[in-house]
Amino acid sequence: MANIYMDNAAGTRLHEEVFEEMTPFFLKEFGNPSSIHNAGVEPRAAVELARERVADLIGARPKEIYFTSCGSESNNFAIKGAAWGGEKKGRHIVVSEIDHQSVLYSARALNRLGWEVTAVGADNNGFIDPEEVSAAIREDTVIVSITHAANEIGTIEPIKEITAGVKEKGSLFHTDAIQAAGIIPVNVEELGVDALSLSANSFYGPKGVAALYIREGARVFSLIDGGIQERGRRAGTENVPAIVGLGKAAEIAKRDMDSRFESTTILRDRLMNGLDSSIPKLQVNGDRRTRLPGNVHVSIEAVEGETMIYGLAGEGILAASGSSCADKALKSSHVLKAIGCDPALANASVLFSLGFDNTESEVDRVLEVFPPIVKRFRSMSPLWKE
Amino acid sequence: MANIYMDNAAGTRLHEEVFEEMTPFFLKEFGNPSSIHNAGVEPRAAVELARERVADLIGARPKEIYFTSCGSESNNFAIKGAAWGGEKKGRHIVVSEIDHQSVLYSARALNRLGWEVTAVGADNNGFIDPEEVSAAIREDTVIVSITHAANEIGTIEPIKEITAGVKEKGSLFHTDAIQAAGIIPVNVEELGVDALSLSANSFYGPKGVAALYIREGARVFSLIDGGIQERGRRAGTENVPAIVGLGKAAEIAKRDMDSRFESTTILRDRLMNGLDSSIPKLQVNGDRRTRLPGNVHVSIEAVEGETMIYGLAGEGILAASGSSCADKALKSSHVLKAIGCDPALANASVLFSLGFDNTESEVDRVLEVFPPIVKRFRSMSPLWKE
Repeated sequence: MANIYMDNAAGTRLHEEVFEEMTPFFLKEFGNPSSIHNAGVEPRAAVELARERVADLIGARPKEIYFTSCGSESNNFAIKGAAWGGEKKGRHIVVSEIDHQSVLYSARALNRLGWEVTAVGADNNGFIDPEEVSAAIREDTVIVSITHAANEIGTIEPIKEITAGVKEKGSLFHTDAIQAAGIIPVNVEELGVDALSLSANSFYGPKGVAALYIREGARVFSLIDGGIQERGRRAGTENVPAIVGLGKAAEIAKRDMDSRFESTTILRDRLMNGLDSSIPKLQVNGDRRTRLPGNVHVSIEAVEGETMIYGLAGEGILAASGSSCADKALKSSHVLKAIGCDPALANASVLFSLGFDNTESEVDRVLEVFPPIVKRFRSMSPLWKE
Repeated sequence: MANIYMDNAAGTRLHEEVFEEMTPFFLKEFGNPSSIHNAGVEPRAAVELARERVADLIGARPKEIYFTSCGSESNNFAIKGAAWGGEKKGRHIVVSEIDHQSVLYSARALNRLGWEVTAVGADNNGFIDPEEVSAAIREDTVIVSITHAANEIGTIEPIKEITAGVKEKGSLFHTDAIQAAGIIPVNVEELGVDALSLSANSFYGPKGVAALYIREGARVFSLIDGGIQERGRRAGTENVPAIVGLGKAAEIAKRDMDSRFESTTILRDRLMNGLDSSIPKLQVNGDRRTRLPGNVHVSIEAVEGETMIYGLAGEGILAASGSSCADKALKSSHVLKAIGCDPALANASVLFSLGFDNTESEVDRVLEVFPPIVKRFRSMSPLWKE
């Protein structure tokens, strides 16, 4: 029997149509887009078409899109680049406690180099308070970076309300939309952001490619210095096939967004409510409604998250106990800690991240198989009291 | 008629065997290597096999290989990472004037942040003097970065002699071997380097993947901070298909290195000598013997380089007038300037970069077609005096 893949937050399945569009650029059109001779023509045109498609997905202009190699690079680029470009204004940055490691550790790296960092918290449902962000901004704040959707738990943040407060203070605003763009409607103008990270592998595009939107005129220095690629802002020969794949995935994501959103949300709620009613002492983490359409994040008292993942995998159900970017040695999620989750429950979490290609029968299979797994593990757990 | 591709310095053709090895990791084994369930198993094993193969190519240990997205990233990682990791020792770095833009502009970015930079020169043939490097090192020098082969002109540098001098002073030594590794024998132990950049696309691997060798224990901080990937030193979901491709290309490069080297060198000399004897007032740039096996870099008095590239392309011959990473607005190459090339000749340069898949008949076709092209352009040039 085929596996049931419910780990789309760790990476989506590559869409066949996307791969088809990529293939000519491996063996046939292998030229360097910067070459002025014939071999550069098709690759260059393909990269620019992809730029238009990505821009179109988020309501940006093509010249505001910079291709990178992964979401983490985009986040590093935005935060470090804005810090380096904003030194005249000051050396203070604001992030949130529920941002991704690539945001938090970019801030930490800057802190080592002399920047001050303020991390705002979140409430029990994972919401960040726009007023708290506003209050954290100082005269010398060069960049504020707040995730579009809380990591792991999927709560969607009030970005528009947050940017309104940031703008008054004159700092740049970046959002990590890696789990959001291509999945839910994201429009840079409506949101009022200066920079935004997105990644192909979140919406059925290939690995190894992502993008950073930088509003025209925003002072963001390079992370990868060197050649003239990406208008001098991101050096390195363009990864043409992957960029083409990102472009195609963006086009499909825009076309199918409404239907994917609707069907995934139905599956999410079916799974979330089903687990909630069939497993006693289960806690849903994150807001139940204002959350990513595929995100079902639960804590299950008295059972280790990793144990449950192995138990599920034994039944062909592939899920995660947290972020695939987190240190396995670091047992507790920084996000669950930030929202005040009981440490015992933080270690007892399972994340089912659904995609448009999951089905109702797959969800029902999880609802059939998972409660008995939990029951079995609990019966062996010294922590469990019926 | 098929094009004659002689622009391998801008990027090599992807080897079919390499692409075959990559394909299962697009649609079938699309899992995240960090996932602890079934879908992570094959991708993780494939990434580690690639790491062994890359290590094997350069005489390193697998745990000293860090995958990146391109050669420019590797160079930025090495230089900025060593600078950030070496702040206790000091804030001075040494590079060479004939290094790649990704090295020079990394140094410039650090300079903006408060580091001092010394750039050593090269002689007329493009050789860097080990004693000059040694003399440039100070107590507070944290990293010395010297290219393995001079950019554009292909002169191979005496890295072993240079590192001997650097070691006495206690600085880290990095070499940009992006044009060398996979093409000529490169062994990190013999060379005595602490860090080394290489790129798949230089030796028939895919775009979008490269590696940085970091000697165990060398203090090099991350460029891309975030998750636990690459032992915490380079965040971002691994670009599995591309990494697999790099590994396969490294394996083939090692296996076929001697035969590729020999045949390419013969073609190079045939082309270089043939042009030299059939085009008057032609200058070969770089050392005639101690140079990359595929590199034929010439300056042709009184004709613009770009004009010649278009003329050749009209005959289906694809070459370059310099680095594909250079600004087209920046007419003169910084490398040619550094070796004391007459500015007029610097603007009149053509780089034929041959690969193992070029043939004798392709070389002969260039020798047949190119001299008349030069003659025609010269007849129209006001600069030309017979």
